[in-house]
Amino acid sequence: MEPILYAIPALGLAALLYTWIRSAWVAKQPAGNERMSSIARHIADGAMAFLKAEYKVLAYFVIIASVFLAYLGFTGEKSHPLIVGAFIVGAVFSATAGFIGMRIATKANVRTAEAARTSLSKALNVSFAGGSVMGMGVAGLAVLGLGSLFILFYYMFVLSVGGDVKGVEMEIALEVLTGFSLGAESIALFARVGGGIYTKAADVGADLVGKVEAGIPEDDPRNPATIADNVGDNVGDVAGMGADLFGSYVATILATMVLGREVEAIDDFGGLSPIILPMLTAGLGIVFSLIGMLFVRVSEGGDVQAALNRGNWISVILTAVASYFIIQWLLPENLILRNFEFTNDGVFMAVIVGLVVGALMSIITEYYTAMGKKPVNSIVQQSSTGHATNIIAGLAVGMHSTVMPIIVLAAGIVLSYAAAGLYGVAIAAAGMMATTAMQLAIDAFGPIADNAGGIAEMSELPKEVRGRTDILDAVGNTTAATGKGFAIASAALTSLALFAAFVGIAGIPTIDLYKAPVLAGLFIGAMIPFIFSALAISAVGRAAMAMVHEVRRQFREIPGIMEGTGQPEYEKCVAISTKAAIREMMLPGAIALIVPLVVGFGLKGVFPDTSSAEVLGGLLAGVTVSGVLMAMFQSNAGGAWDNAKKSFEKGVMINGVMEYKGSEPHKASVTGDTVGDPFKDTSGPSMNILIKLMSIVSLVIAPHIALEREPAIPEAPIDLDVINIEDEKLSPETGNAQINYDNTVVLSHIAQK
Amino acid sequence: MEPILYAIPALGLAALLYTWIRSAWVAKQPAGNERMSSIARHIADGAMAFLKAEYKVLAYFVIIASVFLAYLGFTGEKSHPLIVGAFIVGAVFSATAGFIGMRIATKANVRTAEAARTSLSKALNVSFAGGSVMGMGVAGLAVLGLGSLFILFYYMFVLSVGGDVKGVEMEIALEVLTGFSLGAESIALFARVGGGIYTKAADVGADLVGKVEAGIPEDDPRNPATIADNVGDNVGDVAGMGADLFGSYVATILATMVLGREVEAIDDFGGLSPIILPMLTAGLGIVFSLIGMLFVRVSEGGDVQAALNRGNWISVILTAVASYFIIQWLLPENLILRNFEFTNDGVFMAVIVGLVVGALMSIITEYYTAMGKKPVNSIVQQSSTGHATNIIAGLAVGMHSTVMPIIVLAAGIVLSYAAAGLYGVAIAAAGMMATTAMQLAIDAFGPIADNAGGIAEMSELPKEVRGRTDILDAVGNTTAATGKGFAIASAALTSLALFAAFVGIAGIPTIDLYKAPVLAGLFIGAMIPFIFSALAISAVGRAAMAMVHEVRRQFREIPGIMEGTGQPEYEKCVAISTKAAIREMMLPGAIALIVPLVVGFGLKGVFPDTSSAEVLGGLLAGVTVSGVLMAMFQSNAGGAWDNAKKSFEKGVMINGVMEYKGSEPHKASVTGDTVGDPFKDTSGPSMNILIKLMSIVSLVIAPHIALEREPAIPEAPIDLDVINIEDEKLSPETGNAQINYDNTVVLSHIAQK
Repeated sequence: MEPILYAIPALGLAALLYTWIRSAWVAKQPAGNERMSSIARHIADGAMAFLKAEYKVLAYFVIIASVFLAYLGFTGEKSHPLIVGAFIVGAVFSATAGFIGMRIATKANVRTAEAARTSLSKALNVSFAGGSVMGMGVAGLAVLGLGSLFILFYYMFVLSVGGDVKGVEMEIALEVLTGFSLGAESIALFARVGGGIYTKAADVGADLVGKVEAGIPEDDPRNPATIADNVGDNVGDVAGMGADLFGSYVATILATMVLGREVEAIDDFGGLSPIILPMLTAGLGIVFSLIGMLFVRVSEGGDVQAALNRGNWISVILTAVASYFIIQWLLPENLILRNFEFTNDGVFMAVIVGLVVGALMSIITEYYTAMGKKPVNSIVQQSSTGHATNIIAGLAVGMHSTVMPIIVLAAGIVLSYAAAGLYGVAIAAAGMMATTAMQLAIDAFGPIADNAGGIAEMSELPKEVRGRTDILDAVGNTTAATGKGFAIASAALTSLALFAAFVGIAGIPTIDLYKAPVLAGLFIGAMIPFIFSALAISAVGRAAMAMVHEVRRQFREIPGIMEGTGQPEYEKCVAISTKAAIREMMLPGAIALIVPLVVGFGLKGVFPDTSSAEVLGGLLAGVTVSGVLMAMFQSNAGGAWDNAKKSFEKGVMINGVMEYKGSEPHKASVTGDTVGDPFKDTSGPSMNILIKLMSIVSLVIAPHIALEREPAIPEAPIDLDVINIEDEKLSPETGNAQINYDNTVVLSHIAQK
Repeated sequence: MEPILYAIPALGLAALLYTWIRSAWVAKQPAGNERMSSIARHIADGAMAFLKAEYKVLAYFVIIASVFLAYLGFTGEKSHPLIVGAFIVGAVFSATAGFIGMRIATKANVRTAEAARTSLSKALNVSFAGGSVMGMGVAGLAVLGLGSLFILFYYMFVLSVGGDVKGVEMEIALEVLTGFSLGAESIALFARVGGGIYTKAADVGADLVGKVEAGIPEDDPRNPATIADNVGDNVGDVAGMGADLFGSYVATILATMVLGREVEAIDDFGGLSPIILPMLTAGLGIVFSLIGMLFVRVSEGGDVQAALNRGNWISVILTAVASYFIIQWLLPENLILRNFEFTNDGVFMAVIVGLVVGALMSIITEYYTAMGKKPVNSIVQQSSTGHATNIIAGLAVGMHSTVMPIIVLAAGIVLSYAAAGLYGVAIAAAGMMATTAMQLAIDAFGPIADNAGGIAEMSELPKEVRGRTDILDAVGNTTAATGKGFAIASAALTSLALFAAFVGIAGIPTIDLYKAPVLAGLFIGAMIPFIFSALAISAVGRAAMAMVHEVRRQFREIPGIMEGTGQPEYEKCVAISTKAAIREMMLPGAIALIVPLVVGFGLKGVFPDTSSAEVLGGLLAGVTVSGVLMAMFQSNAGGAWDNAKKSFEKGVMINGVMEYKGSEPHKASVTGDTVGDPFKDTSGPSMNILIKLMSIVSLVIAPHIALEREPAIPEAPIDLDVINIEDEKLSPETGNAQINYDNTVVLSHIAQK
């Protein structure tokens, strides 16, 4: 066993150690007065109640999926029942990542509120520490899980039987490891969709009755849905996002490893190195994320966004530099993958392409969703003619916002492929994801600050406290938007890497759109993000309506509730969100899991010239391309509507008149924001997991639907004894040798060795 | 020259003769009192002013495009400068079709209003006669144009030089004929987009200030935008729809002809027959549409929808039956296209598949957009919690509505391919489009009735007149929705047929998604419908805002306008819509035309293993799949919102309470309807033309970007003199002969001759 392999789980353990220490530090911070603790406890209890309910349902899912996987494992030639073990570990680790995030977020929120009584700097410290725990926890679990399982399977399937690190033995080892990614991603899907429905049902419901009908401010303790709303921030934005990035991180590394097995060195021994490179890069990313985190500090009145950017860039640049040396050290100079030759410098270039694509995606997303920029302003202006024109403007911004990211992504695909073939596309994604710990820390601090603001409001803390948390929250909104751009880009590249890995394992030489069943697969695939989004947003609509009716009932029936003397029944609203989220996440989740199975197994042998694997390839391409577009459209429209509404808080100039909160145009902008809520926090971000999960399911079943590779040219078994060379001539058109044996066989192609 | 060929333009001329007679009949009907005539004149003048302005701009476009085409025609090997002639004829015919439709619609509207004073039956007669003129005009022009140009080019390029009807001479003849389709489709794009922007800018603007702000009813003569609104019905729903279907009709026939050239008979002489079959089918469709039209009659109090359905089914079934005999007569029994063998029965099966797909698409579309059905009811219910939930519900319905049509379409692709290969896919589209004359008559009668209602309202005719036109209008709304389903299905199949034709002419053996540039092309292509939609709907938003400001200004500045004593300046509003439509149609039109050129020519030779034609193929697949989805999503969401709003007119039960017009939920439903307006009448239907036009542009440039077919395996030119056979052995794995020549070359593949 190569000693460097042990470094990988060691780095994962180190990250978890950091998580533990930092978590203890957060727990030691003061948790505020009795009122604050009580509210925080309500939120924490609600969040844990949801997690418990969700994990209970998911436990059943894991059992059913395990039975199916075991069946596959026992029957497939290139498979093994141990995939069940990897799957369960992946699912448990993903659930643990969500749990760690939720746990720390529900501790850090009230402590951030308390810290904000003192200073902005302290409040940032506490909230960002919470985010760091989440980030390091996710990255640590991923690297620990992947690294140790790889060591185990490498030993079992390859070393112990003296197998080839490039051969079928390693193929089986990696195929079994895919179970880990499948487990991670399926939990992520349910967490993202369930969390997304939960948070927006509560948010939309609370806003519609509270802000619009009763005219009370956000986070007002008289609103029975307000606790559910704050719980939602945790289950959706923290646990959901954590599970999402955990899944992407694992899937990207895994896809690169699968492709890495096929990478051969031309003139040198490559061996294991292309397989372990992505894991090592991820390990390095943990180290440099940790260093970057040290630079996230701000003094009172300082620029929080700048502090976060500084930390982020430090970790990204250090990781890029380190990856250069590690690539030079690990990889031989000349490599080849499926007839495409490239160099180790090319691999480094691909990493850089990935980092640039990730950065550009974030910048573009910010442009389309930031206050004061043209897109958001156009929505503000069109709010002046009513609700409808506000909606039209937002939809147009969302659609428009797909242009530049798609061009960047397409360029990224072409360039990373040119640099290092399909391995380049995969390693670009891996490079982009290397600093996931840092990205997630930045992402997760936002909802913590948001929650802190809610607690400050509900506990009636002094105005300057809410002012400080609002500064953090505003930055959090921007990082949430840019984080979504990053998440989409990474999901797109990850899916393409998985797609390439799938093609290899399924043994299909092309995915030819010219074939009718493949084209039909492309159509069906592209439709799936639409039905998935429809289910997600209508689930939010229905659950929000139920919430509205419940809140109206409480306002009507509980005496003294509006005067603050009657106690609202918070737990009833929490229960509505929980129940709706659990119930409504089933169908979209089932679609993502079952469609690849139906196509892969159901169409096996149905079409004479087209394997079911090729149809599935077309389907995956359709899901990916339409999923990426729908993700951008919905997330960016939602972000832009949100900030258009926020623009009214400071006042905006429309047709020469300043308009503020409470004006007619502002009311129109609230409608847009409400429509945007499920777009940006439920259906939009779910697209990422949808496209990844469908790719992973396909990868898992790939060995079972693989056809024996048909030779490109039909073979004619001939009896060499009867061959008599009669004639030799050079074909006049092609310059090929054409040799007639006994007038029966023509050798029409000559390949150089 | 085969005599049957002359039958084709003759059938076209017969249709035009019918158009002329029927048009004269409409003109002879009484046009009502002075007030009615005056309003009708305003509308007709506005419509003609728009057409004039539009055609002026398009004339410049035709000149520029002609220069480019002439350049291509003079330089390409498989091209000819005569394509310019075909292009101009196509453009002129398309413009003429729009003109005929607009002319008859602006005559029939006031006469329908006058007829409605007598009876429903008479009103249906007049309005449906108007629609028939439009339908027959479009079909007649298409068949006349295609048929006579084909005879001309067939004579010039094939017969006069003794060329082969299956050879390169016919390839050139058909390539030149493509110019006709290009001309038709480019005019259609501008007409659809321009008309769509015009009608919705006026409609949304008129509604926002009139209905919502001033509280006056629709079509109130005091509203300065009301004439523009009624003009819009004509330029959008009549001229735009006519040009759209003219384009689809021509493109479908043409694509089938191009593929038909490659169809060979296995054991018999097929010759010209697969090429002329689609034209003959279209000709038959004209005859049977005419017969179907005779059955569209209704007595007072009768069921208008049933009368239209009866006429439609008669023409569809007769055409299907006739196509069986014509296929048996024309085609030999066994056929082959690009290695796919099929029979003439298979071709007939493909026609039936096309007819079934078209019918199912209409039925599904009706389900998702009809009053009283679950989807529309869900929007009605969610209007109770405000504007935002109404919007969320409508978006969810739109996304949801893509599922069944896509499954039907995918099944249609697979089945028609299985029946008759790529020729089957094309002929399925041609079969579906055969009764275009009837379809269009049903489609165009709706806006005529809508306009008649507007005229009745503005002329303050008795209530029962408006009641009768409302019955027609309600049926018109349904036929508009189902017509859109039909138009999308036909556009999708047409694009696939064009796609197949493109692949053949460009000479690319596969469109392999596994290649990075092709995948990048797929992403870029799929993004185009998003930017196109964004431009179209934001154009409507902007123009509607301008309209709102103008109407507000007139309400403020013209004394006595609200009392009906001051005269509104209708022409100012007409001018705003006209200017906006002309200006805003440019950019989306340019995108559709230029992107294929940039990809096809710009990327020629850029990628070592991937031709620009293959990248363009990926791009077209992306445009088609995403365009079809966006068309369904937007059209159906818009239709559903519209009918959710209309549901309130009769009253709806929400949470046990009856809600009517003017209630809060109704106001929310008006917002949805307004958002849906540009969705269903501007961007949604433009998708059809977008995907067709991009496919046709690609087909036109295909011979110029075609690469010589690369052999599947790299060739190694060898000097046979130095070859010494040293060794012969059979490869143990493959059974292939492996012969080492001088240890340098291995013959690894043996192909049977």
